[in-house]
Amino acid sequence: MLRQLEVKSRARTEFIDITADVQTMIGNAGVTSGLCTVFVLHTTAGITINEGADPAVQRDMIAFLDRKVPADHSYTHAEGNSDAHIKSTLVGTSVTIPVEGGKALLGTWQTIYLCEFDGPRQRRIAVTIMADS
Amino acid sequence: MLRQLEVKSRARTEFIDITADVQTMIGNAGVTSGLCTVFVLHTTAGITINEGADPAVQRDMIAFLDRKVPADHSYTHAEGNSDAHIKSTLVGTSVTIPVEGGKALLGTWQTIYLCEFDGPRQRRIAVTIMADS
Amino acid sequence: MLRQLEVKSRARTEFIDITADVQTMIGNAGVTSGLCTVFVLHTTAGITINEGADPAVQRDMIAFLDRKVPADHSYTHAEGNSDAHIKSTLVGTSVTIPVEGGKALLGTWQTIYLCEFDGPRQRRIAVTIMADS
Repeated sequence: MLRQLEVKSRARTEFIDITADVQTMIGNAGVTSGLCTVFVLHTTAGITINEGADPAVQRDMIAFLDRKVPADHSYTHAEGNSDAHIKSTLVGTSVTIPVEGGKALLGTWQTIYLCEFDGPRQRRIAVTIMADS
Repeated sequence: MLRQLEVKSRARTEFIDITADVQTMIGNAGVTSGLCTVFVLHTTAGITINEGADPAVQRDMIAFLDRKVPADHSYTHAEGNSDAHIKSTLVGTSVTIPVEGGKALLGTWQTIYLCEFDGPRQRRIAVTIMADS
Repeated sequence: MLRQLEVKSRARTEFIDITADVQTMIGNAGVTSGLCTVFVLHTTAGITINEGADPAVQRDMIAFLDRKVPADHSYTHAEGNSDAHIKSTLVGTSVTIPVEGGKALLGTWQTIYLCEFDGPRQRRIAVTIMADS
């Protein structure tokens, strides 16, 4: 069962918490047990799971990525967003999560993030929920 | 079909081979063909697949990650383990593996690792096995 | 449904577009809706999704990885390809993609790449297509 989610980013680099949206989609799908894949349909964004309680974790991660993959390095890609493409491959474009008891099985501190690396933009995310047969 | 695995790490940074546990779970599940997702329920650990024959590969990878994501950098997250969160997102929190002939289809040198980045700790891993319908 | 793909690389580091092969396999599988996992059976290669329109994006990504994970660093693994193992874990060994309308649902610019990090070699890729039950 495929559902789509639209997310609007407001900064060039930003982590946006989409956990509640994904949980609602799984709830509406009526799937008790199985797998859920959250996949971003863009090449300058990513999906990751990390801590959600302290916003400092996201800040540290964004600062790390910006320092290691600088935007102003002399890349050959003319659009000037090669750093965003590189970050997308390092972070990954999807996560696959167990579904149990009608919701995504996440650890206490786990939050699902859309990682924006070339915003602000409108982003499309495909959420696929597979029932255990 | 969801099963859980508990793993105890003994060092701050350590790669622990969980391949045999995953293969046993697939065997017990009675699934011949499908997919298996191995998902760690924590934000300072990861799951990866890499070489298992020569322990030097893990040592080189740990040394690389420690050099590029130093533990003592001035992060803003007060718990002092931002490097572990960053490594978790770089490595990823899960792997999805084909199941064929009742076991995980892995290449000759492929080993499934729990990557501990903030141990020693007890870690929970969810293993979801989906049968091809 | 598992299918295998063989790809021959021609350089030490190279990104090879396998999107058309994967789409053909999904088409032949007769699966309308579900998930597709593309998994490389090696520890010195990876699978990623990134931009395919401008070859400069791949060049920038390869140059970035070669600069950050140099081949000639003093690693302990005697085979001399530790950089390839590290790149494999950073990029990941698989991608999982939604299947909709009988094909992989990809964004406009998304291309599926085999990432060769220790070529030239013959590489095996497992493509698992799961139908939504």
